[in-house]
This record gives sequence, C-alpha cells and structure tokens, in this order.
Amino acid sequence: MNKKGLAILMRTRMKPNSPVNPTKFPISLATTNKMLPNSEGKEPTKQISAEDEDPDFDQKLKAPVNPKRLFELVRERMHSAISMNKTEIQDTVLSDFSEGYYGLSSEDRCKLLMVLGKDYDLNRTHVHDLMKQYLGLQLPAGDKGEIGDEDDSSLSTFYRTEKNLRHALQPTYEVLFDRLNTHPGGLKFLSVLRADILSTIREHNTPSLRALDSYLKEKLITWLSPAALELHRITWNDPASLLEKIVAYEAVHPISSLLDLKRRLGVGRRCFGYLHPAIPGEPLIFIEVALLKDVAQTIQEVLWDDPPILECDATCALFYSISSSQPGLTGINLGKFLIKRVIELVKQDMPQICTFATLSPIPGFMRWLISKLALQSKLAEADTLERSCSSKETAGSAFREDVLTTEEESQVLDKLGVSTSRKNGIEVILELLKSPNHEWSKSDEVLSVLKPILLRLCARYLLQEKKRGKALDAVANFHLQNGAMVESLNWMADRSEKGLSQSSGIMVNYIYRLDNIEGNAQSYFSSGRVSAASNLWRLVEQIQLAPR
Amino acid sequence: MNKKGLAILMRTRMKPNSPVNPTKFPISLATTNKMLPNSEGKEPTKQISAEDEDPDFDQKLKAPVNPKRLFELVRERMHSAISMNKTEIQDTVLSDFSEGYYGLSSEDRCKLLMVLGKDYDLNRTHVHDLMKQYLGLQLPAGDKGEIGDEDDSSLSTFYRTEKNLRHALQPTYEVLFDRLNTHPGGLKFLSVLRADILSTIREHNTPSLRALDSYLKEKLITWLSPAALELHRITWNDPASLLEKIVAYEAVHPISSLLDLKRRLGVGRRCFGYLHPAIPGEPLIFIEVALLKDVAQTIQEVLWDDPPILECDATCALFYSISSSQPGLTGINLGKFLIKRVIELVKQDMPQICTFATLSPIPGFMRWLISKLALQSKLAEADTLERSCSSKETAGSAFREDVLTTEEESQVLDKLGVSTSRKNGIEVILELLKSPNHEWSKSDEVLSVLKPILLRLCARYLLQEKKRGKALDAVANFHLQNGAMVESLNWMADRSEKGLSQSSGIMVNYIYRLDNIEGNAQSYFSSGRVSAASNLWRLVEQIQLAPR
Repeated sequence: MNKKGLAILMRTRMKPNSPVNPTKFPISLATTNKMLPNSEGKEPTKQISAEDEDPDFDQKLKAPVNPKRLFELVRERMHSAISMNKTEIQDTVLSDFSEGYYGLSSEDRCKLLMVLGKDYDLNRTHVHDLMKQYLGLQLPAGDKGEIGDEDDSSLSTFYRTEKNLRHALQPTYEVLFDRLNTHPGGLKFLSVLRADILSTIREHNTPSLRALDSYLKEKLITWLSPAALELHRITWNDPASLLEKIVAYEAVHPISSLLDLKRRLGVGRRCFGYLHPAIPGEPLIFIEVALLKDVAQTIQEVLWDDPPILECDATCALFYSISSSQPGLTGINLGKFLIKRVIELVKQDMPQICTFATLSPIPGFMRWLISKLALQSKLAEADTLERSCSSKETAGSAFREDVLTTEEESQVLDKLGVSTSRKNGIEVILELLKSPNHEWSKSDEVLSVLKPILLRLCARYLLQEKKRGKALDAVANFHLQNGAMVESLNWMADRSEKGLSQSSGIMVNYIYRLDNIEGNAQSYFSSGRVSAASNLWRLVEQIQLAPR
Repeated sequence: MNKKGLAILMRTRMKPNSPVNPTKFPISLATTNKMLPNSEGKEPTKQISAEDEDPDFDQKLKAPVNPKRLFELVRERMHSAISMNKTEIQDTVLSDFSEGYYGLSSEDRCKLLMVLGKDYDLNRTHVHDLMKQYLGLQLPAGDKGEIGDEDDSSLSTFYRTEKNLRHALQPTYEVLFDRLNTHPGGLKFLSVLRADILSTIREHNTPSLRALDSYLKEKLITWLSPAALELHRITWNDPASLLEKIVAYEAVHPISSLLDLKRRLGVGRRCFGYLHPAIPGEPLIFIEVALLKDVAQTIQEVLWDDPPILECDATCALFYSISSSQPGLTGINLGKFLIKRVIELVKQDMPQICTFATLSPIPGFMRWLISKLALQSKLAEADTLERSCSSKETAGSAFREDVLTTEEESQVLDKLGVSTSRKNGIEVILELLKSPNHEWSKSDEVLSVLKPILLRLCARYLLQEKKRGKALDAVANFHLQNGAMVESLNWMADRSEKGLSQSSGIMVNYIYRLDNIEGNAQSYFSSGRVSAASNLWRLVEQIQLAPR
C-alpha cells in the first residue's frame, strides 16, 4: 500500500449504505427485467442467465432504470423472498431483492419498509384460532400452571399447541430476516435495513414500524451474540480496505491524516475490533488504546503532543475512543463484551499494566446545561413579571431551581457582569456559552471564573442527572453499566471545536478497577448509584446554593 | 509436531463429552464447595477466588467429590443461572454450572435434564392470562385479520401484547440457553447438552424432554447459521489439536495411521471444515475430497491404491467422506451449505475441474434387505402352512411381495441351492448374507450369482424406498436434498468389514451437476422424485418378478 493510495483512501469517506457490490447491481436488474416482463406475474420464476440468451445484454446494462418500475420490482422480489416455500431455491431472489433495494431512493426505501411492517405482519385470525384451541385444553392443576405427572398424549398436545402458537406469533417478515441471514452479504444488508427503519421511524413513528424495528433488533442481538464475534487486533499490516473503515467510522476523534492513523496503530498504541464472519473486513465496533505511564488528562497528549513511551514502561491502558461502524446496530451493546475482552487480552500480554481507564467525551453536557440555564432564566423572568402583579406563588415555580451557589453568583456578576447588560449570573453564563466561535474560551479571565462552576455542574450532570434510572449522558451510561467508575474531570482536555461545543472542553476519566467491575455494574443496575471518586461526590453534595 | 507425538495422538480417541478444560474442573468444584457450605442457600453468592483465601487449596483439589452432593450443587447452580436477573453477573455461576455438569455421571445428567425439561417450562397461568387479554382486544376487520389504518394507541396495545405473549410462550429454560450461548465455551457446552438430551430421550421418551430437545435444536440452528461459520481448509500445517479432532471424528472411513492422515491432507487431496468462532480449533463438520482424473469406483483406490495424480491433470473432485464432530448437532443440516461452498471454492481454485461427485456408503442397505428378506421368508412359511388348511387368502398376504425375479430365483436355486438345505431363493440368500465373517464374499461363484441381484435390489433401495416421502437411506437423503443425482453403483467398492456389513460392499456415486443442482433439489423436495442415471431406473422398472 503506497502513500498515494492511502492519501486517496483518506479522502474517500465510506457511505454506510452503499451496495455491497455496486457493479453487480445493474446486471441483476437487467436479468430481473427480462424475467418479469410485467409486474403482475405473481409466481417467482426460475432465473435464466441473461448472458446465455441475450446478445444485447451489454447494451441493457447501460439503460437507466425507471425509479417507479424499480420500486415495483423490488417490492415484488421482497414478496417472493417471503412467500416462496422453503424447498425453493432462494439465492437469486434474495440477491435481486437486496441489490435492488440498494438502488432505491431513500423515499422508496421508507415506503417499502412501511409496506413490510404493515402487510407482512401476523396472521391474527390464525393466532386467534390457535389461542381458542389452547384455552380449550385442560390446564393441569398447580398455581404456576405446571404439569404434574407426565400424561403422554395430553401433554404432547400441550407442547405442540404451544410450539404452533410460538410460531404463529412470529411476524411473517421473520422469514425474510432468517433467509437473508443465511444469504451471503445478508447480515450486512439486514444492518442497513435496520438503519433505514430507524431513520424512517424518525419521520413516521407508527406502531407497525416500531414493532418491525423491535423484532429485527431482537434477531440481530441473537445473530451477533459475542460467541459469533472475533476479537481482532488491527495493525498497520491490515488491508487498506479494513483501515479505510477505521478512518470512515472513527466517531470520537476524527482521524486527520495518514500519519495520525499510522500512529494510532503503532508503538504504544493498540486498536482492537470485533469482526463477524459474515461481514468480513469490517469491524462492527472498534476501540483505540494508548499505553501510558499515567492516566492522560487531555486528548492532546494522546493524539499529538507526546511521543509514545516504551511499551515496557507503560502501566496504564487508556481507552480513548470507541466507535461503532453500523448505524443499524444501534441499541445493541457490543462494546460491553469488547471492553471486557480487551482488558483480558492486554493484561495477558502486558502484566505490568495495572490501570485500565478511559479518556472520554461528555457528549450531552453542554446541551443539558444550556437548556437548563435557559429554562431557569425564562422562569425567573416570568416570575419577576408575575410577582409584580400578585404576591402568590407563580405558575412556573415548581420547576425553578438554583443552579449556582451564592458565591458563584457573586463571582460571575462581579467579574464578568460588567461587560454584559445581564442582571443575574445565569444569564451572564448563558450569553458567554452561546457566544460565536467559543469566544469565552479565549479569555483567561473568563476561564478562571467559569472553570470551577462548569466542573461542578459537569460533576452534577454525570453523577446525578438520570433518565429512567440511567445516567443521562450516553457515554457515561455505557461505561457505568460496564462497571467503571467516574474518576476525574479534566478541564480543557479537548479544545477541538467538537470538544468545546459538546462539553466546554471538559473530558472525563472513567476507571475500570478489576476488583470492582462486577460490584459497580450491579449497584448501578439495581439502584442507579453511580460509582465516583470521593472528591467528585463532594463537589455535588453539601453545596450552598444561591437563594432565589 | 514429531512422529512420536502424532503416534500418541493417534491412539488417543477424543471423548466427545469430555470437559472443554478438564484441569479447571476440580478448581471450580473446590471453589463451589467453599462458596456454598450447605445446599439450602438459594441466593447465588458472589464468587471468592479460593486461591486468595485458602492456604489448603491445593489439598482440596485432590479431595474426591460426593456424587450426590455434586448433583445437588449442579442443580442449584442451574437454578441460579436461570433465575438470577439479567443485571447480575453470571459468569461464575455459568462456569460452575457447566464445569460441574461435566463431572456428573450419565445417570445424573439424565436426571438433571429431566428436571430442566419439566420444572423450567412455561408459566402457563401467565400465558392464559395474556391470551384472555389478547382475545379481549378488538380484532380489526379483514379476512386475514390485518390491521387497516394505523390507529396508534390501540395498535400499540396489539403489538405490545403480541410481544409479551411471544416472550411468555418461550420456556423458562430459554434463559439458560441464551446465557450459556454468550458465555465462553457455552456453545460447545450446549451441543454436549443436546447430545445428552438425545441419549436421555432414547431411554425416557417423555413429551417434556422432546419439547426441550426441539427448543434447543431451534436455538442451535439460529446460532449456527451459515453466516456465523467459517470455511477452513485443513492442512498438515494445522495444529495437532485440530488434526486430532479429524482423526477422532472421521466417521466414514476411519483414519488408520499417521501416513493415512497425512495423505488425506496432502497433494491431490483436500479437506475442508466449518469452524465456529465460539468453538475454536474444532471443525463442526468436515469433508474430504480427492482430486482425480475420473470418478473413482472403489474406496480402495482413493484411500490406498493409487499415488495421487498431478493436481493440474485432475478433472474430478470426489467427496469421499463427510463427518460431523458434534453428536449434539444431530438433525441440523450443516453439510448442505458446506458442499455448496466447497464446490464454489474448488471451482474457483481449479477451473479445469468439471465433475463434482461423491463415493458414498449406503449405510442402511443391508439392514433393510435382511429385514425385508426375513419378513418375506416368514410370510411365505406361514402362507404355506395356512394354505394347507384352507384355500382362502391368508392373513399376511397383504405384506407379501416378490423380491426376486423368476430368473434370479432359478439362478440362486440352481447354482447356490445345493450347498444349503433351503427351498427357495430368498432363504438361500438370507442364509448366505448372514454367514459369519462374510464368508459369501470370499467365493467367486457366490459373488457372480449375487452381484446382479444385490445391485438391482440396491438400486431399488436407493431409488424407491422412502420414509415420509424421503429416501430411506440417510446418506442418500442428504445428497438428494442437496441436489445431487444417483449416478452409479459400484460392486465390491468397499471390502472393509464395515462396508460388507452395511451394504455388502456396494458403494454409490452421487453426482452434483452444477446446472441441475437446483432443479434436482426442488423436484426431490416437492414430489420425492429421485434423480438417477437412466440405467439405474431401468434396473428397477420393467422387471419381471417371480410369481408367488
């Protein structure tokens, strides 16, 4: 692989939804056209190779395909793929369907998925019949409904009916998923399908689409069980086609250059990915590790500043990036098993490593903070207005809360209030944080005032802000449920545009302590308790908030 | 790997049910004993590493385990593995369970599996409640029970209840299977579990065990989908631990020596196996291929006689052995995908190969023939006896059939009848075939008379004898449903003890013709029609049977 080749590679961003084999696509379509002179034909016909029969075949390849006609063909192929019985040979139909699908516009994909969710659902009449039959069977005694002695024939009927019901309750589209899963390239295609379902739901949030998504997700979880995944150490010796995926899918700290990529795979660094045999050469998820003397506090020192140390001197493995390559696998936690296995592997390889930590972004902090501040500012305004009219408690007061401490409030007003026309600390901070190009981050005076305030609020965000009992921040939730603890917050640890927008430049170290992983995970799951260093807990507890 | 090492390896036959890591087993037990001082404790306790705490640990390793106590421990671990909630850490419980299970006697395994099938079944009361709730929902109009317009809230209820029902209809033991599947070594363990279920069923054929088996089989089919399997070419460079498996599991033509194994992996030969990432180093199924000028007619020429030809001169790939290593995967057709992929691979690698054939055993022929002959002989006897009493049709006559042609009958009596006291052809043949040490196969005279008769009956057996619409012979059924055709029968093609007992030495060539694979498979599936060479059809059709 020469430098020029890689330079080209760097410019080419993979489109996740691009066809597996784009060159094959028009061939298949031409064949499909030939096979089905009109779209009324319902029977899946046996495929005839167009090359064998048609001297003008090459011409047809170049003919543009009418989108409406393509949609009908794909829809029909989908129907065949579902309805043909299992003794029929499905390969060509499945290839036609998936290759045709890749050629559809996003509107047509969306339309097709809605058809799939609605028209290939359960046969509810059949389900009803079976249920009535089941309820008619003599339920044996016992409070849990267990079966006592084994009375052969009646028991067999029970088990048979239950099996039938189980099958009848599976939606018709399950057949399509199962068949695609055993088809070459099918698992990858199913992950694309799920990504499209998720984006369709964003626009048309119908119950049938949600059910389609939930069912496909369950199936993908089964197929992508960690037992089927292989941990692969990705190195500079891997094929460019694989490295290209790393460049394309790195979601945390974009890879800026050839040198950057090479360094992330070189001395003092590790990169591991989970590969599935059915999606070769494309890690489903990968993790980047830096071998260091101490836990790094800024991403700059990991990515750019320091030359790597001797690996034998390293005592800390720092996970600084985890990215998933398949938007269609959203909600399927592959990372959990990955981190666990990477820790085992590194430990085995380098027993002197005793600290396993992360340097992680806090993607939701600024969004949360700004909306919290904005709400409080509005409520305060309304409050003042209403108070001037009546002396009663005001309508919004239930949502009022004190975000700043008395001391912070006066610090902000004293040192930063002069330059603005704002009359309280919240409004001053809000205006600063919203300033274009993160101007606030360029003044030492502003930084010195904001630093303790933002760090405290960030600790509150990570340790206390929850949604359905889980940490509001997605990355925090990921590491906490894997058994990590919040170790420390690092000021100005990521000065990139992304770092400043997401978390005012703050980054966090989560630590995986081998002895506590199981205990931490369990207490997080059962009580929602976040494990964190004591100084972080002190930051959020026992503070004096400014009176309203 | 030296010669001595491999010689030792050759003598060691793998026990399929041996523990994955036998040395670990006593450690875990000692730990288990320590963790659970009495078997009444119901809560899964957190595992403490015994090494850390117990200076007498090594002593305990050697202590024998009381079988009854072990059974109780394993049963309790099984209960914990099923009943703990998903937020608890399951690794130690699952390890304890599987390692303990490997230490159980076969009676105890059987007992445990019956408990699993019966006590961890469905919660039928819950199922009943959900069904009543479901039937209470307003079923939308439409003959198939489809849902018309998307009425959000009522539809959501429908989908939710269906999902709940689907889950409630899954037996409780599904949790155990799912958890084991994601546990290291768990998939292999599940395959051992299924093998044990199958052998338990042979003795206690209860409905709950059948349901347990059928459910686990369905799960294994999902997890072992071809998408998760990797095709690996097995060579002499593979680790001895893998080659040992080939020696241990070769089920068709046992590997007799180091030289034999080396030759099967050397020039002019191929061996391919399907590996699953969760069961490393152990092909689930493997196929042996000989590269030849023509389709071989005897196994001797494949295994011993001829030195291999130059690979570039080969025009035929002969599949001469397919073996599965996991008795727990019985009924799961992995071979179908294997043959298909091996053909593709060989074709790609050596385009000059144009014939894909097998040289296959006919494992059920003699068993079928002898029981058929014995039945006819008995019926004939009873017939003669009854005829002498009355002139009516006799009771057994509905089952009477003429096995030999007139000509065959007289040939047998003329040439072979003298040496026996038997009075009809069937009895003569029966006596010869049952003679000890296959004496019949050592006389040229006997062979010359039996050859056409046995070949004709063998053709009838392969082409016409069915069970539930499928070929009675398991190997025939396997190849026919994969799309092969019966090409020719070969007399004295396997003179080994096994070959003579199974099929009087006859072997069969099935041929995979690329153009006809799909068509053959389809017509076999839909009508049970066996594709076979025309001379074989002539053998079984238009024959004149001897009158009764």
